[in-house]
Amino acid sequence: MQLLSSPASPYARKVRVTARLKGLAGQIEEVPNDATNAAAQSIAAKNPVAKIPVLITGDGNAIHDSHVICEYLDAQVSSPVLFPGEGPARWDALTNASIGDGIIDAAILLVYEKRFRPENLWHQEWMDRQQAKIDGAVAHFEANLPEWQGTPNYGHLTVACALGYLDFRHQGKWRPSAPKLVDWLERYAKAVPAFGETAPPAA
Amino acid sequence: MQLLSSPASPYARKVRVTARLKGLAGQIEEVPNDATNAAAQSIAAKNPVAKIPVLITGDGNAIHDSHVICEYLDAQVSSPVLFPGEGPARWDALTNASIGDGIIDAAILLVYEKRFRPENLWHQEWMDRQQAKIDGAVAHFEANLPEWQGTPNYGHLTVACALGYLDFRHQGKWRPSAPKLVDWLERYAKAVPAFGETAPPAA
Repeated sequence: MQLLSSPASPYARKVRVTARLKGLAGQIEEVPNDATNAAAQSIAAKNPVAKIPVLITGDGNAIHDSHVICEYLDAQVSSPVLFPGEGPARWDALTNASIGDGIIDAAILLVYEKRFRPENLWHQEWMDRQQAKIDGAVAHFEANLPEWQGTPNYGHLTVACALGYLDFRHQGKWRPSAPKLVDWLERYAKAVPAFGETAPPAA
Repeated sequence: MQLLSSPASPYARKVRVTARLKGLAGQIEEVPNDATNAAAQSIAAKNPVAKIPVLITGDGNAIHDSHVICEYLDAQVSSPVLFPGEGPARWDALTNASIGDGIIDAAILLVYEKRFRPENLWHQEWMDRQQAKIDGAVAHFEANLPEWQGTPNYGHLTVACALGYLDFRHQGKWRPSAPKLVDWLERYAKAVPAFGETAPPAA
């Protein structure tokens, strides 16, 4: 299998953690790529909306987005179960992941505002709008810690990668307001060594 | 159940079509809402990243995003199956849905550029970047029509709702370059009356 990705992508990190937890990392060749315009063409050949990560399976099929790739990898090996079967545990895990993905989407739009626009076109209200989504999600998890039994699932994994991305690109500004969630992330990192192993490179 | 949504939301349309296909529409009370700042607070109480749609289940749990809601509704009633079980059909359906969601995301960012920014802060390169994702996805499906047997699945449903949103907000500009896909959408609308029944209101 091949993973089209970039070292800094939080969505690719979700896939990397999943692959390690499922014992599949050794079967996946990483093909670095990123969402800059120069590289976009080769991504677009595998994903028409030109987003990473994309997994190319052994059969040559392209699979995305990160939610789909993680579920695909989870289905290849029976244990540990990262996507609970149908029932309340599944919807709870997937909804937590949706909030985590929402954090990442907002955090990426904040990065893109400054990466893709000249400074005279930055819009503070738009940035405030994205920051409010991040702050709301952090406050939600601080008040509703997503605890686990046994192996943390795909929901926990996504929340951890979202917080890791806030640390990486947004200076860990979320931490002072959320001490319980800081402790939660430390516990996650201890339970899932793959999380630390997939940390993005220092800038 | 309650669906927090707005009449114009393409993601909510995915849920509405799913609910009708599964015979569940009568059990879902629609609670109009939208992503304007005025309404954002009540959405944020149910989804911390303040995005619609959100489904409140009979147990009072909040479920999102649209992918998760559609899968939840699919699991409540056995037929027709919109999410194929594990195997190539599932990953194909979910990857088509990922491309459809990618069209919607880009199309919404184009709308938001003009809704949330004063005209002097519009950035043509950013808009071109989003348009290129839409154009790439339309060209992909024109060359790879997602055909179905029996009932169209969640992948087809998402692609149809994405094209419907391009018609609604972007003047059907996709149509001249994609005559086979235009025909495909007509066939989808004939196979799934719920698609026409959930068309967004005239502006």
